[in-house]
Amino acid sequence: MTFNVAILGASGYTGAELVRLIATHPSLRIAALSAYRKAGQRKGDVYPQLRHLDLPVLGTIEQIDFGGIDLVFAALPHGLSQALVRDLPRSVKVVDLGADFRLRDPAAYEKWYGAAHVAVDLQAEAVYGLTEFYRDDIRKARLVAGTGCNAATVQFALRPLISAGLIDLDDIICDLKNGISGAGRSLKENMLFTERASDVLGYSQGGKHRHLGEFDQEFSALAGRPVEIMFTPHLVPMSRGILASCYLKGDPKAIHAELAARYADEPFIVVLPFGQLPGTGAVTGSNYCHLGVTGDRKPGRALVVSTLDNLNKGSSGQAVQNANLMLGLPETDGLLLAPIFP
Amino acid sequence: MTFNVAILGASGYTGAELVRLIATHPSLRIAALSAYRKAGQRKGDVYPQLRHLDLPVLGTIEQIDFGGIDLVFAALPHGLSQALVRDLPRSVKVVDLGADFRLRDPAAYEKWYGAAHVAVDLQAEAVYGLTEFYRDDIRKARLVAGTGCNAATVQFALRPLISAGLIDLDDIICDLKNGISGAGRSLKENMLFTERASDVLGYSQGGKHRHLGEFDQEFSALAGRPVEIMFTPHLVPMSRGILASCYLKGDPKAIHAELAARYADEPFIVVLPFGQLPGTGAVTGSNYCHLGVTGDRKPGRALVVSTLDNLNKGSSGQAVQNANLMLGLPETDGLLLAPIFP
Amino acid sequence: MTFNVAILGASGYTGAELVRLIATHPSLRIAALSAYRKAGQRKGDVYPQLRHLDLPVLGTIEQIDFGGIDLVFAALPHGLSQALVRDLPRSVKVVDLGADFRLRDPAAYEKWYGAAHVAVDLQAEAVYGLTEFYRDDIRKARLVAGTGCNAATVQFALRPLISAGLIDLDDIICDLKNGISGAGRSLKENMLFTERASDVLGYSQGGKHRHLGEFDQEFSALAGRPVEIMFTPHLVPMSRGILASCYLKGDPKAIHAELAARYADEPFIVVLPFGQLPGTGAVTGSNYCHLGVTGDRKPGRALVVSTLDNLNKGSSGQAVQNANLMLGLPETDGLLLAPIFP
Amino acid sequence: MTFNVAILGASGYTGAELVRLIATHPSLRIAALSAYRKAGQRKGDVYPQLRHLDLPVLGTIEQIDFGGIDLVFAALPHGLSQALVRDLPRSVKVVDLGADFRLRDPAAYEKWYGAAHVAVDLQAEAVYGLTEFYRDDIRKARLVAGTGCNAATVQFALRPLISAGLIDLDDIICDLKNGISGAGRSLKENMLFTERASDVLGYSQGGKHRHLGEFDQEFSALAGRPVEIMFTPHLVPMSRGILASCYLKGDPKAIHAELAARYADEPFIVVLPFGQLPGTGAVTGSNYCHLGVTGDRKPGRALVVSTLDNLNKGSSGQAVQNANLMLGLPETDGLLLAPIFP
Repeated sequence: MTFNVAILGASGYTGAELVRLIATHPSLRIAALSAYRKAGQRKGDVYPQLRHLDLPVLGTIEQIDFGGIDLVFAALPHGLSQALVRDLPRSVKVVDLGADFRLRDPAAYEKWYGAAHVAVDLQAEAVYGLTEFYRDDIRKARLVAGTGCNAATVQFALRPLISAGLIDLDDIICDLKNGISGAGRSLKENMLFTERASDVLGYSQGGKHRHLGEFDQEFSALAGRPVEIMFTPHLVPMSRGILASCYLKGDPKAIHAELAARYADEPFIVVLPFGQLPGTGAVTGSNYCHLGVTGDRKPGRALVVSTLDNLNKGSSGQAVQNANLMLGLPETDGLLLAPIFP
Repeated sequence: MTFNVAILGASGYTGAELVRLIATHPSLRIAALSAYRKAGQRKGDVYPQLRHLDLPVLGTIEQIDFGGIDLVFAALPHGLSQALVRDLPRSVKVVDLGADFRLRDPAAYEKWYGAAHVAVDLQAEAVYGLTEFYRDDIRKARLVAGTGCNAATVQFALRPLISAGLIDLDDIICDLKNGISGAGRSLKENMLFTERASDVLGYSQGGKHRHLGEFDQEFSALAGRPVEIMFTPHLVPMSRGILASCYLKGDPKAIHAELAARYADEPFIVVLPFGQLPGTGAVTGSNYCHLGVTGDRKPGRALVVSTLDNLNKGSSGQAVQNANLMLGLPETDGLLLAPIFP
Repeated sequence: MTFNVAILGASGYTGAELVRLIATHPSLRIAALSAYRKAGQRKGDVYPQLRHLDLPVLGTIEQIDFGGIDLVFAALPHGLSQALVRDLPRSVKVVDLGADFRLRDPAAYEKWYGAAHVAVDLQAEAVYGLTEFYRDDIRKARLVAGTGCNAATVQFALRPLISAGLIDLDDIICDLKNGISGAGRSLKENMLFTERASDVLGYSQGGKHRHLGEFDQEFSALAGRPVEIMFTPHLVPMSRGILASCYLKGDPKAIHAELAARYADEPFIVVLPFGQLPGTGAVTGSNYCHLGVTGDRKPGRALVVSTLDNLNKGSSGQAVQNANLMLGLPETDGLLLAPIFP
Repeated sequence: MTFNVAILGASGYTGAELVRLIATHPSLRIAALSAYRKAGQRKGDVYPQLRHLDLPVLGTIEQIDFGGIDLVFAALPHGLSQALVRDLPRSVKVVDLGADFRLRDPAAYEKWYGAAHVAVDLQAEAVYGLTEFYRDDIRKARLVAGTGCNAATVQFALRPLISAGLIDLDDIICDLKNGISGAGRSLKENMLFTERASDVLGYSQGGKHRHLGEFDQEFSALAGRPVEIMFTPHLVPMSRGILASCYLKGDPKAIHAELAARYADEPFIVVLPFGQLPGTGAVTGSNYCHLGVTGDRKPGRALVVSTLDNLNKGSSGQAVQNANLMLGLPETDGLLLAPIFP
């Protein structure tokens, strides 16, 4: 059976990654593509890498007939999805790749995103899209909120450890190295090639990054008490990939054992042998997440490293994985592409 | 039906790309992997990006039982395939990704590779593996010689034009920009990251590059007279991709029309609208070749640009495409992965 | 003796490179900096790499008192310098790094830049800034027009050969590989890191690049007849550097001998031994230009490769070299910094 | 006055950086260059970027007449300097850029480097080369041991804070991002361009990195008690630069004030305004170190970021700075080159 999907905001990087993944998906068909600024442009100009595909013309959201659409992927800037999803027919399932439905608490949304939410009912209805931890809810959901890419990377490392009570909750330090595509395709001087090609630079340091809203919500719920991690992302000169180095207090062997057990049956989460660390280059272009654990000469300290491709497992791959569940398809459909190296 | 394949020389980049492609191929199964220097190493060390796959242990060629193998991919340094293929059971089909069987004339082989060929009969039997031009022969072949990656890139641009008599055969200048993976995974000081990261440098200039043997053989045969092109590759700081800028004397509109007509039904060759030029970034990780044609303010001059991924369409993708034909499978099986961008 | 200089358009890459060079120049003092869009911004935000220097506040052009300025470097978008220079006191010398005064013929200016020149008298007065060929005129000039960076690269290769009658003037093909900083610091989607990091792409092909106006003017004057070269630049993933591969008809040994003789006494032009090709990485950050010549298996064909740093010898280094001459200083002052590698 | 220097191990990256710096140094003259593997090679092949300089022929150490040498820079692999320095005339001053003399305790040397020291007397005599903290001793030293590049980066951030008792000594976590040139010019598969161009990967994690020997020695001496930091370097795809993100427990404002006060008069250490973080790109090619401090939403936590160019301030720039002191020259001679950006 084939399902018709629409991709809104298709001209950005997550939109293009969705098209790439769906191009070889056995059961999804791209029925509509919207791209506000680029509506009406030639496909080859917006997506030179997808010239060979028979894709619908890029249009505006208003031009889409949602009657024939089974599922919508919304890859829009935060703030735009709320009203849009509110106005869609209830028969259309939605996977939102933006930030609009990640935070269940309207006050938290307003705190981190600086504006009141306009679809509070939907915000409450939305299921948080971290597949490996919300799988059953996602199967039944009409609206799934894709996680932040950083938020996914770190949660794969920490959730099982918090649940199992294996780490000191007051001393969690996550240092991230982020590929530039996480900044999207919008025009910013500091994202020019020349600005980034030979630079490593921290940003949103000191507790200001919006993905902290997700961490606070999820980790506090798991722990049953407030948890605040330290979290500092750094831009590094590569296009794709996030590597999270998590400095923890706990027994490294027990930590490794817990992660290995928790993910033993997960098709997309790979736990490396104890003492080995993963690199971003081994997951590029794929829906896989690699986890590694090592100890330190100081007893009771552990380093857990998590890496994934921010555009894929961190965003569009996760979205397809969730769509598969929502549509009753095999969860791995279209997602078994091996990483590309070099 | 499933066919068992062996990959010899699996630890290099073309070997890894074969594994990546076959991982999602519907009818090929990797039954054996050999890697001389790395035999016995842990899979995760040699292929961190393929950890999730259930692959055979890396062994030596001697350890392989070729009785159960339908087809061998030989990704070996030139000189090593000759004796190996000679000693294989005749029931095993072979796609050679190296240079050993590309040149039909033993004297030409000796001239360009500096040693006498040890399997001259096989050299005569081998079919040249440029699929789009040798498709019928490849279907019937036992031994197919994969082309050089540069040789493929340039031939897609020039073969139809030479056949149609559209260009001056004495003034063909091909300037190539080459990703670093073309140099393979062997240890050379000038291939260190630090040496290549901010450098563009020509090499094998002045008629010394071995792929000239292929050009001479193929273009002279097409033209019915000797043809010698000027050909200069340049290393550029990226991992994958070749871009060939071919400066030609001929009518650009006629050239474009000829290429568009010739490749209209080819699944992997895309001819852009007249006046548009392709970039390497739009074919990365795929089996597609993009071609563009433009004119100049000087009448009678044309620029034809051809680009492909050297590890894929230029080597391992081509090899799978040929294997599909040799095994009676649909030609595009396992090869419709869309390029990855960014 | 110390001369006061002002840099107009100081926030772009050529402006920053001027500051970098003048920072260790023995006789120039930066007395004023203007940067229209960034006027008033903190120095550390605009120039994090120049935090340690005691620089004037970035202001607007209107805020500068040109009475105390000996020489102005104008690093402005084309079109803006014309009126500005017209209105400066005649006592102020000017090195213009833009395109406004490169073309002596007002009709040529209008043809390539799409608007009438507003200071035609100055256009006639301006000296073309290719130091090694206009040194005596530059010494006496009030207004020097810096060359295009591509134009400089190619002219170092070709001028002596055209003057000496050593090459076929109707078959000159120049294929350029260009670092991304040549596009400047302005916001363009196709200059984002993610768009350029793994791509090689030709642009302004087919005789459309504005630097052709300079080539036509200079080469036709040298030859005493119209000369039109084919010229195609390509963006490659590095920040700095231009490599021009010039395919010529002529005797390669004679070509090498001519270049070696012509540049024997030039402090910044290095001709490599015959058969060796230069790379961009060996001139990064410096005012040096490296030239290499090789032959081909086809007799009578030569490849001449020229490389320089577009922001330095191709722009700001050249500007300082010319300013030194105009101010009666030693020509190499401030310019002997060795290239940075790796 | 001009001093004659010899550079031993001149063909590596720190050796080439020494040549680059000394090329514009007012008082140092390169009198001899040795390079074991490359002795006798053409200068243009080993140093294409230094072709324009009039340098001595690369020879072997044995060929050098140390009678005329005032100071030796030894840029040799660890283990080789010990015997060499032992056998030099006592009249020759030595700046060692390797690891042989960094650890005063022979047992510590043996622990971290796996072999007994062969010149224990010299090891005791050597002054640790972190200029800003050992300036007076360096002035009087005959033998100065250059610090590790990571060791320098982190010490600039932490030394004043440990001395002032401003941070919790049991919870110091340093996460480093390292340019690839830190691995040197030796042949390793994992340092090929293709292996590193799109990867971030931790290494020597868990307390195994040799620079920990320096940290333990220095920090414990400052604190008057054992101090063991957690320290994890990560390879990132750029050639130069180290960025150390140091996660500390202490008052961020007090930390910033202490660093600002401590380095107020240092010519090469720049402390950014509170809340701003430095990037590696702003120190490339220079002897500057940039430091930034920010707080967190959790009170009592601070992030101190330190960045420098590993080949320059982290190695060869530091070496020249120390040589200046040892020879009675102005400390900043030859070192005021502004960073290169982009």
